[in-house]
Amino acid sequence: MLRSAMKATVIVSLKPTVLDPQGMTIHRSLASLGLTNISDVRQGKIFDVSIKDGASRQEVERLAKEVLTNPVIEEYRIIWE
Amino acid sequence: MLRSAMKATVIVSLKPTVLDPQGMTIHRSLASLGLTNISDVRQGKIFDVSIKDGASRQEVERLAKEVLTNPVIEEYRIIWE
Repeated sequence: MLRSAMKATVIVSLKPTVLDPQGMTIHRSLASLGLTNISDVRQGKIFDVSIKDGASRQEVERLAKEVLTNPVIEEYRIIWE
Repeated sequence: MLRSAMKATVIVSLKPTVLDPQGMTIHRSLASLGLTNISDVRQGKIFDVSIKDGASRQEVERLAKEVLTNPVIEEYRIIWE
């Protein structure tokens, strides 16, 4: 059977209670560009992960939890394709 | 009428032809962690944007296109909530 590799998307974002200086800097610069209706910007990271056929989803869970996320300030979610 | 602000998610990723050193570094480190079934990792950025009620979607388009994306090496897509 011909199948392309499985894909998953891991989204890592700062916990809502954590200050996001990058997002705040972007937001502050918008007024000078005339984008006055944007009330908040928060930045996160996204990882497109390819997995070999037959691999378990647990590997992506481990990747997200142990490698890509700092559990002190960040949280993650995984979208399966 | 009571309504919470509109939200949009802007995803900025490197064009497929552009080398992704961050993703490659993550991918290389995985073998030593026993994550041998992950065949590729590519990193991108995600922005959670809040918009004032009644604002036009065009503002988010402009934000994505003119502020968040480097058109030489990156592409973006917008997910409306």
